[in-house]
Amino acid sequence: MDAAVALADSARGLSSPNPNVGCLIVRDGAVIGRGATAKGGRPHAEAIALASAGSAAAGSTVYVTLEPCAHASDRGPACAALLRDAAPARVVIALADPDPRTAGKGIALLRAAGIAVDVGIGADEARRAMAPWLMRIEHGRPFVTLKLAMSLDGCIALADGTSRWITGERARMHGHLERARHDAILVGRGTLEADAPRLDVRIEGLEDRSPERLVLTSGDAPDGWQAIASPDAIAELDGIESVLVEGGAGAASAFLAADLVDRLLIYRAPILIGNGLRAIGDIGLTNLASAHRRWNRVDHRDLGSDTLDVYERARNEDCTASSGKVGTGFPPE
Amino acid sequence: MDAAVALADSARGLSSPNPNVGCLIVRDGAVIGRGATAKGGRPHAEAIALASAGSAAAGSTVYVTLEPCAHASDRGPACAALLRDAAPARVVIALADPDPRTAGKGIALLRAAGIAVDVGIGADEARRAMAPWLMRIEHGRPFVTLKLAMSLDGCIALADGTSRWITGERARMHGHLERARHDAILVGRGTLEADAPRLDVRIEGLEDRSPERLVLTSGDAPDGWQAIASPDAIAELDGIESVLVEGGAGAASAFLAADLVDRLLIYRAPILIGNGLRAIGDIGLTNLASAHRRWNRVDHRDLGSDTLDVYERARNEDCTASSGKVGTGFPPE
Repeated sequence: MDAAVALADSARGLSSPNPNVGCLIVRDGAVIGRGATAKGGRPHAEAIALASAGSAAAGSTVYVTLEPCAHASDRGPACAALLRDAAPARVVIALADPDPRTAGKGIALLRAAGIAVDVGIGADEARRAMAPWLMRIEHGRPFVTLKLAMSLDGCIALADGTSRWITGERARMHGHLERARHDAILVGRGTLEADAPRLDVRIEGLEDRSPERLVLTSGDAPDGWQAIASPDAIAELDGIESVLVEGGAGAASAFLAADLVDRLLIYRAPILIGNGLRAIGDIGLTNLASAHRRWNRVDHRDLGSDTLDVYERARNEDCTASSGKVGTGFPPE
Repeated sequence: MDAAVALADSARGLSSPNPNVGCLIVRDGAVIGRGATAKGGRPHAEAIALASAGSAAAGSTVYVTLEPCAHASDRGPACAALLRDAAPARVVIALADPDPRTAGKGIALLRAAGIAVDVGIGADEARRAMAPWLMRIEHGRPFVTLKLAMSLDGCIALADGTSRWITGERARMHGHLERARHDAILVGRGTLEADAPRLDVRIEGLEDRSPERLVLTSGDAPDGWQAIASPDAIAELDGIESVLVEGGAGAASAFLAADLVDRLLIYRAPILIGNGLRAIGDIGLTNLASAHRRWNRVDHRDLGSDTLDVYERARNEDCTASSGKVGTGFPPE
């Protein structure tokens, strides 16, 4: 399932409006088919993997990150039917499909055909790889990552605004890679006016993955930028499943106060600044207890002398659990 | 040498005024002697290790964290002479002795007796274990650790001062262990008045390791506390080789601005606070370049859901390198 999740991850940001699914077919200990949802959403991962496996898929084990779709489409057959016809011995599924058009029907179709089906293996990892699509389908808004590049004491610049450079070359390059993985990047109006950031991807070969540029402002956006009046307004963005909030403190605070941050990327340089500019401002916190149990650390790594810590919204705070805001997104096909 | 360093570490805070040395004697792959400087400074580590090894020390390899002393004392013989008489085949020394009464004479005495001597193996680790004593002997002041317990965004409390609790039980317990390893703890006057901290060691069995209590103030200290008018004044403290600065932001900033912090302990909770109280204030930084290359991370660990990062003053900034402020400390015997 780890390999299937890696395939899903490889299609992230490319498979819209369909989910970025990964599929691996194994028989007698050998991988006989691999697939990830193609650019634009078709073919689906299962169709690609089955095509490469051919008739050898009979009796195999299929690993797939999302329940195979059960609804027919003009653009291709339902994957559950394709799988049934290929007759694997077993299908291992990480996540059931939240799309009401499938939602268990794919699993039922396979089981009715006598195929063993396991659900839930690698669910956390699959959920992470498919987080943007899941956020859109379950909550009708993009998945939001807040990036903070700061000193040990939480400053993003000197008091005079100087911020070049807090972090080093490797951390900044990692930040560009994160840009390439997002559909849109957002900054506050102050940051746009002060720094005039390009917010493009400066990695050779990935220049065309430079995301849409958003600015949080009640006013107009300059050419090449789109204005967002409030954090909530990201839900209205067409074709945007993931937003990277890059700063400044005002934009970061606005998204945190609106409880619209799903993931934190904290790049930290081994420096102390003291009375510099803070990474975030007022986020409406009134007591310490309510600050706890909101964030789980899921990654920690060294980037040169800097570090990167990645935090995700804690599952008990996760609006995917029980907020009832399900199903307002546009459906995949 | 790792085991010898661990022995040295075990005598930290106990061997004053003598260095906390560790010594291990190995023959035919077996450890035949172990020693750490005893409480109060005598016997020395080498004497203890040689006594336990007895005549088997002949032909052995001796690992010792500091060059054996070469000066006679009323309290005992010079270790270099003891070692020469025990006739090991080889003596491995982590650090040469900065004490001018030995400073190479111990090594020369051993070599003159035909014993092979290696110097420098495990020097970084030995320097870390003996840092307080080295700071006193080389720079005439205690070794200063600054402890910061903060949120991801660098706050030590809410705006109203609430700071219970930022970090969790395991991080706080680790903080008590650090207290037990220090000769004195210091807080600012504001913290003393606001929080009336006990600053004792609340770990069973270590209560009697509770350190001296210092307050940074130009005024008087309450009963049980000693007043320190400025960070520089720590150099005048008798019998204090290590100081743990526990806060608040004013005391932290004063020590940082005076360039008197040798080690940072950063306990970090996975929470965001926003517009809370900062961990440190003005430290006199005027440009970003001068903030870099001052701190090296030497440890990172999880403490429950919190993390601990330990930073040490970078070697190139280390005043032990070439500041010329050597030798103002009281000599060990």
